[in-house]
Amino acid sequence: MVTNREGLLVVLSGPSGAGKDTVLRRLLEVNPNVTLSISATTRPPREGEEHGKDYYFLSKAEFVQLISKNGMLEHAQYCDNYYGTPRGPVEEGIQRGHDVILEIEVQGGEQIRKKNPEAVSIFILPPSMKVLSHRLHKRGTESEEIVEKRLATARKEIEQADKYDYVVINDDLEDCVRDICDILSAEKKRTTRSGKLIEEVLKNE
Amino acid sequence: MVTNREGLLVVLSGPSGAGKDTVLRRLLEVNPNVTLSISATTRPPREGEEHGKDYYFLSKAEFVQLISKNGMLEHAQYCDNYYGTPRGPVEEGIQRGHDVILEIEVQGGEQIRKKNPEAVSIFILPPSMKVLSHRLHKRGTESEEIVEKRLATARKEIEQADKYDYVVINDDLEDCVRDICDILSAEKKRTTRSGKLIEEVLKNE
Repeated sequence: MVTNREGLLVVLSGPSGAGKDTVLRRLLEVNPNVTLSISATTRPPREGEEHGKDYYFLSKAEFVQLISKNGMLEHAQYCDNYYGTPRGPVEEGIQRGHDVILEIEVQGGEQIRKKNPEAVSIFILPPSMKVLSHRLHKRGTESEEIVEKRLATARKEIEQADKYDYVVINDDLEDCVRDICDILSAEKKRTTRSGKLIEEVLKNE
Repeated sequence: MVTNREGLLVVLSGPSGAGKDTVLRRLLEVNPNVTLSISATTRPPREGEEHGKDYYFLSKAEFVQLISKNGMLEHAQYCDNYYGTPRGPVEEGIQRGHDVILEIEVQGGEQIRKKNPEAVSIFILPPSMKVLSHRLHKRGTESEEIVEKRLATARKEIEQADKYDYVVINDDLEDCVRDICDILSAEKKRTTRSGKLIEEVLKNE
C-alpha cells in the first residue's frame, strides 16, 4: 500500500485572543502526527525556560551565521533581539512524516509562504470582534488602553487573513481542532502532493 | 456565529473496479450533508428504474432544449442517446447547503471543472493495478477479454487522475470514506470560499 510519508509544513496564525495556544495544546493532544516547531532567539532565557523546549537560545553570532547559511525559514528583529524558525528541525520533522506547525505572526507567515509554496497556512479567527473584545477584557490583567491597542492590532491581522489558505473559527474548541485535523488530512490527499502515488498504483501490476 | 451556508459541487471519478459505488453508498450513510446528483438520459427506462431517482428520463427534444438553455452542467452522447447532468437540481442542492456529488467519468469531469472552477474534484484510486485486476476478475461475470479491456481503460483513466484536486485510495472502505469527508470539511474552510466570513467577523463589533 502506497502512502505519502512526508509530513506538512503548517503555518498557523491568528490575533491575540483568538485562542491559538489553547487550540494548539488540544491539537497536540488529539493528533499524534502533529509537532510544534521551536523558535530560536537571542534574548536570554527567562526563569524556567529550557533550551530546545521553549526556545533554542542562541548567541547573536550563531543566529547571524544561521541566517547567512539559509538556516532560518524566517526571522525578525524585535527590541535588539533576533527571533526566528530554524530550518533544520522543521525539515527533519517533515521527513519523519510529522506535520510541523509554526505558530507565527502574519509577517513571519508571509516569509514562510513565499519561500515555501507547499506550506499549508491556516488563520484562526475569533467568532466576531465582539467576542474577541470580550475575551481580551476578561483577562483583566491589562489596562483599557492596552486592550484597545490589541484590538486594533487584531483587526489589522484579521484583514490579512485572506492571504492564508484556510480560515477556521475558534468558537467551540473541539470543532476548531477538528477543522484543523480535517485540513491536515485533506491536504495530504492533494494531487499536487500525490504525483508519485499515481505512478506507483500504475506500476504495481 | 457566521458559517458558509452554500454546499460544494463535487466531481467524483474513478475507474471501474475502484469501488466508487460502494464508497458513495457508505458516504451517503455517514454524511447527512451529502446528496447525489441524478443524471438525465434520453434512453428508455429499464425495468424498475424510476424517473427522478435513477435518472431523469427525457425526450430528445427536452434534452436538446435544456442544452440550448445552458441547463446541462455537462453532457455526452453514447449509442444514439444523450446523457448529462441537469444544472437546476444541482444548484438548488448547493444553495440549500448540500454537498452535491456528481459521479462522472473523466471526460464529463473535465467539462464540469472547466466551467465550474469552484468545483472540488476527487479521483478514487485502487491500491494498485494488481488489486484492480483481482477485483475485476473476481466478479467472474465477464470474459477474460472484457476484463483486459476494462483494465486498459482503467489505466488510461488513472493516468488522468493528476487533473483532479484530490486522489484518495480505496483500500479500506471506511478510511476512504473518511478521507472524502475530511476533504469536504476542509474545502469549506478554504479562504477562497470564506471572503464574507472575514468581513462579517470584522463587522460584528
